[in-house]
Amino acid sequence: MNYIMQKSSALDQVWDNFSFMQQIINAHVNRQCAGCHEGGQNEDTIFDLDASRQGFVVQGSNGEFPFLTSSERLEVGPSPVLCLLPSPTAACREDFLLPPAATQATVEMTVSMAQVGADAAMVVTPCYYHGRMNSAALIHHYTKVADLSPIPVVLYSVPANTGLDLPVDAVVTLSQHPNIVGIKDSGGDVTRIGLIVHKTRRQDFQVLAGSAGFLLASYAVGAVGGVCALANVLGAQVCQLERLCLTGQWEDAQKLQHRLIEPNTAVTRRFGIPGLKKTMDWFGYYGGPCRAPLQELSAAQEEALRLDFTSNGWL
Amino acid sequence: MNYIMQKSSALDQVWDNFSFMQQIINAHVNRQCAGCHEGGQNEDTIFDLDASRQGFVVQGSNGEFPFLTSSERLEVGPSPVLCLLPSPTAACREDFLLPPAATQATVEMTVSMAQVGADAAMVVTPCYYHGRMNSAALIHHYTKVADLSPIPVVLYSVPANTGLDLPVDAVVTLSQHPNIVGIKDSGGDVTRIGLIVHKTRRQDFQVLAGSAGFLLASYAVGAVGGVCALANVLGAQVCQLERLCLTGQWEDAQKLQHRLIEPNTAVTRRFGIPGLKKTMDWFGYYGGPCRAPLQELSAAQEEALRLDFTSNGWL
Amino acid sequence: MNYIMQKSSALDQVWDNFSFMQQIINAHVNRQCAGCHEGGQNEDTIFDLDASRQGFVVQGSNGEFPFLTSSERLEVGPSPVLCLLPSPTAACREDFLLPPAATQATVEMTVSMAQVGADAAMVVTPCYYHGRMNSAALIHHYTKVADLSPIPVVLYSVPANTGLDLPVDAVVTLSQHPNIVGIKDSGGDVTRIGLIVHKTRRQDFQVLAGSAGFLLASYAVGAVGGVCALANVLGAQVCQLERLCLTGQWEDAQKLQHRLIEPNTAVTRRFGIPGLKKTMDWFGYYGGPCRAPLQELSAAQEEALRLDFTSNGWL
Amino acid sequence: MNYIMQKSSALDQVWDNFSFMQQIINAHVNRQCAGCHEGGQNEDTIFDLDASRQGFVVQGSNGEFPFLTSSERLEVGPSPVLCLLPSPTAACREDFLLPPAATQATVEMTVSMAQVGADAAMVVTPCYYHGRMNSAALIHHYTKVADLSPIPVVLYSVPANTGLDLPVDAVVTLSQHPNIVGIKDSGGDVTRIGLIVHKTRRQDFQVLAGSAGFLLASYAVGAVGGVCALANVLGAQVCQLERLCLTGQWEDAQKLQHRLIEPNTAVTRRFGIPGLKKTMDWFGYYGGPCRAPLQELSAAQEEALRLDFTSNGWL
Repeated sequence: MNYIMQKSSALDQVWDNFSFMQQIINAHVNRQCAGCHEGGQNEDTIFDLDASRQGFVVQGSNGEFPFLTSSERLEVGPSPVLCLLPSPTAACREDFLLPPAATQATVEMTVSMAQVGADAAMVVTPCYYHGRMNSAALIHHYTKVADLSPIPVVLYSVPANTGLDLPVDAVVTLSQHPNIVGIKDSGGDVTRIGLIVHKTRRQDFQVLAGSAGFLLASYAVGAVGGVCALANVLGAQVCQLERLCLTGQWEDAQKLQHRLIEPNTAVTRRFGIPGLKKTMDWFGYYGGPCRAPLQELSAAQEEALRLDFTSNGWL
Repeated sequence: MNYIMQKSSALDQVWDNFSFMQQIINAHVNRQCAGCHEGGQNEDTIFDLDASRQGFVVQGSNGEFPFLTSSERLEVGPSPVLCLLPSPTAACREDFLLPPAATQATVEMTVSMAQVGADAAMVVTPCYYHGRMNSAALIHHYTKVADLSPIPVVLYSVPANTGLDLPVDAVVTLSQHPNIVGIKDSGGDVTRIGLIVHKTRRQDFQVLAGSAGFLLASYAVGAVGGVCALANVLGAQVCQLERLCLTGQWEDAQKLQHRLIEPNTAVTRRFGIPGLKKTMDWFGYYGGPCRAPLQELSAAQEEALRLDFTSNGWL
Repeated sequence: MNYIMQKSSALDQVWDNFSFMQQIINAHVNRQCAGCHEGGQNEDTIFDLDASRQGFVVQGSNGEFPFLTSSERLEVGPSPVLCLLPSPTAACREDFLLPPAATQATVEMTVSMAQVGADAAMVVTPCYYHGRMNSAALIHHYTKVADLSPIPVVLYSVPANTGLDLPVDAVVTLSQHPNIVGIKDSGGDVTRIGLIVHKTRRQDFQVLAGSAGFLLASYAVGAVGGVCALANVLGAQVCQLERLCLTGQWEDAQKLQHRLIEPNTAVTRRFGIPGLKKTMDWFGYYGGPCRAPLQELSAAQEEALRLDFTSNGWL
Repeated sequence: MNYIMQKSSALDQVWDNFSFMQQIINAHVNRQCAGCHEGGQNEDTIFDLDASRQGFVVQGSNGEFPFLTSSERLEVGPSPVLCLLPSPTAACREDFLLPPAATQATVEMTVSMAQVGADAAMVVTPCYYHGRMNSAALIHHYTKVADLSPIPVVLYSVPANTGLDLPVDAVVTLSQHPNIVGIKDSGGDVTRIGLIVHKTRRQDFQVLAGSAGFLLASYAVGAVGGVCALANVLGAQVCQLERLCLTGQWEDAQKLQHRLIEPNTAVTRRFGIPGLKKTMDWFGYYGGPCRAPLQELSAAQEEALRLDFTSNGWL
């Protein structure tokens, strides 16, 4: 396999406008299994899609991926997902968050995901033994996965969940691999994001903001897109923010960014998945119940969540 | 099901001398699959057992549980494990570390583990969304698991790996559940261990030190046993420390405890599983290679590891 | 005293172009005491000043403020400092970092500083009992200080040194005080900086980036200036970055920002004050020795420090 | 000066029964200044002393040392303090917590403290630049201070306030200094305390528990005393716990230790100095108001504080 070509090809096919904004929660499970889970375990999601959304991540953290069974993880077949993508210019885009575990298992999951139609695999840092996950271990892990994955690999660093940042020197080394095409960085450290852009500037390597709270700032330092939980409820607004940044309308971008920070924090760090699902219900989508051990919001929390949207003019 | 009876029964059968000291690394995988893994993935372990070891934990953190596949997790059948237990008074003792994931999956794994012969299930705190794992969520999780588990449940708090301590108020509430019989606490905060002993003193609830570094201190504040990675290599010595504590020979216990601290830190926090496996090789057991992404020790690290044993008179 | 007027006045006089970029290390001590300290305690500093530098902070963290004696802290008189400011449009600008201690002592120091000519007081969060320093305590502290200070107060949040972030809700409340004119935020969380700008937008309140690593990003989300350790050695470049941001030349700004990240990290988080002083020597200023317990860099550290400047084209 | 002799002498004179249990809050300030502070700044303390208390620390963290002015710090003269010590067998014992700052200032304060009658100086780790405070810097700092201090030095590690642990290798090196006689360790990591005892066993070096929550466990691993905030309110009980440990009555010690954990946490980590002062009022001593920015407890907090004492039978 000619990886250099594959990397270019990946960039053409998958990444052309991979400044996507939408993160689907269990999209496929919904279509295939809606109503088939008992006991309040139905956390499926229905989206109101339009052409402005340029790609999707399924089974990310917000898709409660750690709580899915192995068979649920492979239920996401290509055809129903295609149905979710009305954009005439966008092919099927599915990306998978792989489990934070062994290298061999990650390789196997990547292969399985490719077989059911994923265009790229977003691979979170292994973390359970995070005391041992130094640069050498992480470079070895991602290199092995990228060597054997039939689809391009996106690095994924999310310290709030894993307790570790993928070190910058590891990112720089990995950016040279022909089958590693970018990173989603959810840590929110814009100095680090700028440095990664700077030190990978000679590679085919794209940096994506991992949250809508620092999307404008990430564009300002050279990121090319984002993967944002908030896009599940304010997808058009997040896409609008992208357009303002890309066309240099920084003043309007700033105003819009400001109004998105509190809603974004509310559905991520502050209230997490229960907050995101509740908000999806408010916006006419289907959030549904959380899987245990996640708990529903209390009435007071729900009110605080709503205030974060109303005070910024979104509800 | 009469849980009260079951709890008493569990205490009689499983816990009588549940001050066990031994943590097996993939014991069964070894017996059944030794040599069948290619590519340096054979991390099996052979133990030199004797009657002094009173119980075993299989598939704990040191058994690289997060890296095992689902089928590997269920390969641990009752009969080969019985072979590992020469003690005439001890029935088969197997305890499983369940995965840090959904409540429903934990319940299912508990049932499966019971079917293959486990006597108790040691259930680690869910952690991926640790920002949401407050007392209410954790009480709900463990209550559901304990309600449905056919075998007794041991709580397991290991903040170094999970990033969260099971809160004391949650432990106290859960200690009243008839099918929850104890806690393994690996955090090393002896004030907390003493408080848990104090606040659960009216329950059938036993507190186990999660590491040999604070075993003496835990006994001093009322713990009744331990589950210690170090027992994989210095099993007799850890058992000797227990006996000294139980018979009130605190001066000798103190001297022995002192000599175990550095070796214990070396095979846990300092060098982790690669350190533990290397040491097992030195002591005539089989440690074997680590599963990726864990990396082998460098020569310098190996030397530092050896020094922690030689300087305390163990090698 | 009419605080509203004073606040406007402060903005006119002190803040007009308070997007200053320069942080002086013990400027006055240098002029007055150069050579008079024995025993390697001479950490004085000589600057190559020009009109582009719009203001100065003396006795900040990089001025080893915590290591100065009380009398040294008051040695900074108005006239020698004026000598340091050749800009015809800039009046004497001195700002003081007050000690992380009692409210009463902070008030007294503010008064003393005003008497020797400071234009504003930059007041770091109290931190020794940081477990008790919640929003209520911090609001009380800053309100009392601002009530009694004869000069405007700038809030200063520097979690790397103090272990606490001044909470956003406290900043919002304090921004309404007539004698509190802004915040220096050194935490580097651009989401937080954007939120502070957003929630104080109706106040006379200015947000300053506390480090050159995220200066561009801070401008992008609405900050109006910065107080940057790096300006001690790359002052013109930091000022150039400001101009590029203010005039909307974002592409050039991005390129310049990228080249400043590693040097900035080197003289702050990575090598601290010993790194900053060494670099000042290289750039023709006077850094001098550190006060104990700070230690000089090793040869290897010095080489790594140099590489952070050479690899970005600054040496 | 013959330090070796001085060290032995120090051990004889100061440390004979330096397993003291009492930490005085601003003892002298009380006697000299009671009533002379206006505006709620009177935080003086009156103690009910008896012979069982074997020594005192003045101006520790609980004495709000960081909030005292320089002159207040030197107000503690020998004669009034002697008045506080009715024990015929105990000479004047005063120990000072020195400020977390420059080496030179620490030396000067040590000399001043000796002049006003302190028997030993308890020197907290410098911490403001904690990123630079590695073993080399801390060994240099304490060596310099101990070289020049006319009185013995006690190391003091209190990570909850300073954000850093004095590394074990630094403690081991420093234990060989003839004028360094021990360490107060407030971190609560009993594994670390045991290791320090073990690795300094060939030195004249004594290890003191820094909090009553882990006092029994510290004795069990070889500590010889403690310096405990809780002794301000439950002094006799803390001394009783010491006697039970020293005479090998571990069962009774365990019961008493259990009942002290919650009260101890309440007056330290949970409610801090405001909690300690409030409790002193309840027990018939004089706690008085806190210095700002510390805030008084709310009614709800006060009730929770009281419950921690009543539920353990102390009120």
